[in-house]
Amino acid sequence: MSDQGTAPTVDLNADVGEGFGQWALTDDAALLQVVSSANVACGFHAGDPSTMRRVCELAVEHDVSIGAHVGYRDLAGFGRRFVDVAPAELRDDVVYQLAALIGTAASVGARVRYVKPHGALYNAIVHHHDQARAVVAAVVAVDATLPLLGLPGSVALEVAQDAGVPTVTEAFADRAYTAQGTLVPRSVAGSVLHDADEIARRVVQIATGEPVTEIGGAPLHVRARSVCVHGDTPGAVDIAREVRRALRRAGVTVAAFA
Amino acid sequence: MSDQGTAPTVDLNADVGEGFGQWALTDDAALLQVVSSANVACGFHAGDPSTMRRVCELAVEHDVSIGAHVGYRDLAGFGRRFVDVAPAELRDDVVYQLAALIGTAASVGARVRYVKPHGALYNAIVHHHDQARAVVAAVVAVDATLPLLGLPGSVALEVAQDAGVPTVTEAFADRAYTAQGTLVPRSVAGSVLHDADEIARRVVQIATGEPVTEIGGAPLHVRARSVCVHGDTPGAVDIAREVRRALRRAGVTVAAFA
Amino acid sequence: MSDQGTAPTVDLNADVGEGFGQWALTDDAALLQVVSSANVACGFHAGDPSTMRRVCELAVEHDVSIGAHVGYRDLAGFGRRFVDVAPAELRDDVVYQLAALIGTAASVGARVRYVKPHGALYNAIVHHHDQARAVVAAVVAVDATLPLLGLPGSVALEVAQDAGVPTVTEAFADRAYTAQGTLVPRSVAGSVLHDADEIARRVVQIATGEPVTEIGGAPLHVRARSVCVHGDTPGAVDIAREVRRALRRAGVTVAAFA
Amino acid sequence: MSDQGTAPTVDLNADVGEGFGQWALTDDAALLQVVSSANVACGFHAGDPSTMRRVCELAVEHDVSIGAHVGYRDLAGFGRRFVDVAPAELRDDVVYQLAALIGTAASVGARVRYVKPHGALYNAIVHHHDQARAVVAAVVAVDATLPLLGLPGSVALEVAQDAGVPTVTEAFADRAYTAQGTLVPRSVAGSVLHDADEIARRVVQIATGEPVTEIGGAPLHVRARSVCVHGDTPGAVDIAREVRRALRRAGVTVAAFA
Repeated sequence: MSDQGTAPTVDLNADVGEGFGQWALTDDAALLQVVSSANVACGFHAGDPSTMRRVCELAVEHDVSIGAHVGYRDLAGFGRRFVDVAPAELRDDVVYQLAALIGTAASVGARVRYVKPHGALYNAIVHHHDQARAVVAAVVAVDATLPLLGLPGSVALEVAQDAGVPTVTEAFADRAYTAQGTLVPRSVAGSVLHDADEIARRVVQIATGEPVTEIGGAPLHVRARSVCVHGDTPGAVDIAREVRRALRRAGVTVAAFA
Repeated sequence: MSDQGTAPTVDLNADVGEGFGQWALTDDAALLQVVSSANVACGFHAGDPSTMRRVCELAVEHDVSIGAHVGYRDLAGFGRRFVDVAPAELRDDVVYQLAALIGTAASVGARVRYVKPHGALYNAIVHHHDQARAVVAAVVAVDATLPLLGLPGSVALEVAQDAGVPTVTEAFADRAYTAQGTLVPRSVAGSVLHDADEIARRVVQIATGEPVTEIGGAPLHVRARSVCVHGDTPGAVDIAREVRRALRRAGVTVAAFA
Repeated sequence: MSDQGTAPTVDLNADVGEGFGQWALTDDAALLQVVSSANVACGFHAGDPSTMRRVCELAVEHDVSIGAHVGYRDLAGFGRRFVDVAPAELRDDVVYQLAALIGTAASVGARVRYVKPHGALYNAIVHHHDQARAVVAAVVAVDATLPLLGLPGSVALEVAQDAGVPTVTEAFADRAYTAQGTLVPRSVAGSVLHDADEIARRVVQIATGEPVTEIGGAPLHVRARSVCVHGDTPGAVDIAREVRRALRRAGVTVAAFA
Repeated sequence: MSDQGTAPTVDLNADVGEGFGQWALTDDAALLQVVSSANVACGFHAGDPSTMRRVCELAVEHDVSIGAHVGYRDLAGFGRRFVDVAPAELRDDVVYQLAALIGTAASVGARVRYVKPHGALYNAIVHHHDQARAVVAAVVAVDATLPLLGLPGSVALEVAQDAGVPTVTEAFADRAYTAQGTLVPRSVAGSVLHDADEIARRVVQIATGEPVTEIGGAPLHVRARSVCVHGDTPGAVDIAREVRRALRRAGVTVAAFA
């Protein structure tokens, strides 16, 4: 854990290793020079063993924390569609993915330091109690000291806390917030920010405890130890770099939470 | 490792957990009451996370050693057809499978104690140097103390010994041998034995250091610390039980090698 | 097509070809001697190309109508869990499966004569409008003359009728009905019948227009041109045979609807 | 079929639709404006149903012939590694893929006009008799009038001719040739050409019956009705466009062979 001292500290996390075989989505080599935490796909929604190993090597090289980005077993849907999997199976699926990444990381001298569910699973366990419990049960079964990274207020984080699993909250760098502090749905105009300067300014605000401006125009405090930046769209890496630069200029330390 | 003392000792190993989702091949609950070592499919040629977890629980219950039955990524072919996978990818694929089983086993309080390649991969690394080195490199990368179980005289076992990985040789309970001590190809009449008594007698001979009769009729010494019994054919479990009874009657201890 | 004349006629349908590679669920050779319509898995929830071809050959041999048993892309879940797939993708997935079976059947001189969604997709389109429309759109895109076999009162059948796709309703031989004519949920005691004589008697009642007894004890008319029998449980084939015998004794013609 | 008249005619073919779910490899919209024939992945090594449908729609829009790009079942390896699949299974796998594309194409008003095996399967059937026969048997089983596009001198084309299946030979725009007219292996320096002008000049030479310069410097006549251009590397589409321009300047008609 980082010593936050008097200087504000924030973690930047991004999804990496989201390829499969010949296919790639993210520029992992570039992203891993920017972020402090890497959510590594574990083979169910994306990520093959060789991609996983290479990403772990890059993470070691750039001193980036590795997280297990666990998802539904759905390569064709990239884990972005809800699957009504039975909780016991989901728990076993998450144990398997987590274990596979832990061993892959260990094989190159790295360690998995946290867990972040991906895509539709991430969204489901904001409110789906049974699936949330299944994910937490998997973490407990493998290593209850691994923090679960998730959405503030989500059922998953509550369940984790009840189970003694550490929790870390995250904000989204490029998403608009409602006055209630929830994400504006993607279907709403203005829900996704595209301007690098605006995105960077908001991340600095979150990191330094300043309010951001919610979609209605009022100030809103977003409290998060980690901020998720994206790497899968054109210009995404450039935006992430701008965020990093802005944090440095603002005197914010970028450091992994685990 | 067992203390063989003055009593002869042999290990009985069988493939288990060879289902996927709704499908099953082997009667795992029955087999795990008979064998001392269980080769558990890890998800690439067979084996889903829930099946793996249940088999590990049964192995704990019956005090059976768990081995990682690693194979080619080929569910449709059940890992029984050669895939010309690049060695670096094969190594990563084996690391992934091995890691997934290690973590799944640990989640129910069990430990993976050895590695046995499956099907076409098992056959390939009898002679395929690059793939043999890839499998051994995977074992070294994950845990170089895990023994590799394989065919006597195979390239894989040589490579393993050179790499400092322990090796264990196995015989096949229901296969005829040539005068040179190799398996009679399945395409030859008489290559596969079906009589439970004959199979049991041969296993006792192997376990007690007596010669078996090779297909040409001459005596042949088959030296193996482990004997593979099958569980995927009608009557296979009954044959395995008869082998176990015959060993007990002959005063042979059945004990895992790891 | 059957001549219904004055003699009552019913179709018996069953799921077949539900294997994958080395794995099998149903005794297809036995089932195809009993039923008049075979729901053939198309590769997404079960069914590999060789299994599909062999089942089509058996269907030709036994003069059984072939239906496309289309499902979610979910081998691990056997198509039994809801997947929130986007309608456009679902339509394309169904077109693909339907086309694959049509061509496979044609390659052995057979023809696909109807479509029956499988498992969780079957259940979803009882009420899920978007997925129901997607399935019907796929049928229209491939061959709008293929009847859709489904649950009486389901949204899918309504949508099909609106689109000019023929519809056929089915009853379930071994399921209890509510007074409203819907299936008693599996979680309720008595929802699944196991007695071969009772099951056979009910199928005869349905085929001859007699009321069955709903779970509350009152008479209920179940109108269905086809009755689904199961083949994936122990004794299932025996039950199906008993149903067939009882229909013959009652003078009911068993004939495919398409 | 094109009228070759007195003007030289050549077909340009390229692999398209090589994505899967979220992943894409080729810029299909751009490629389909350049080529006259599109090899469409059918779901086994690449290609999901929605990608297939969209590519077929684009092919219709640009009046490009659709070919079935059939491959081994190996998404993780992108069909680029040999799989020792049994001939009967390979035949069934090819029937399935071919049928799926035929039906998908038909659903958008298009027709599949030829078959071209992909990757490792393409290379295998240059010499592997059993797999070559399996591929040809699949074409015969589905539609024996569909031409097989392949390497001149390959076993597959011989087998096809014996079976009455039309054959079409192809050259590779960006590959060096030996004095014997075979491709220089990729491991040899100079085996792959990168200069757009040189590549375009060679395609014009092939199309007009002029000799190209083989790797040793001597003239070599390469006879091919179709020339394969690539679309999966940076600049590949630009090269393909330059080829197309050079053919127009040389008075060569670009026209599909089927």
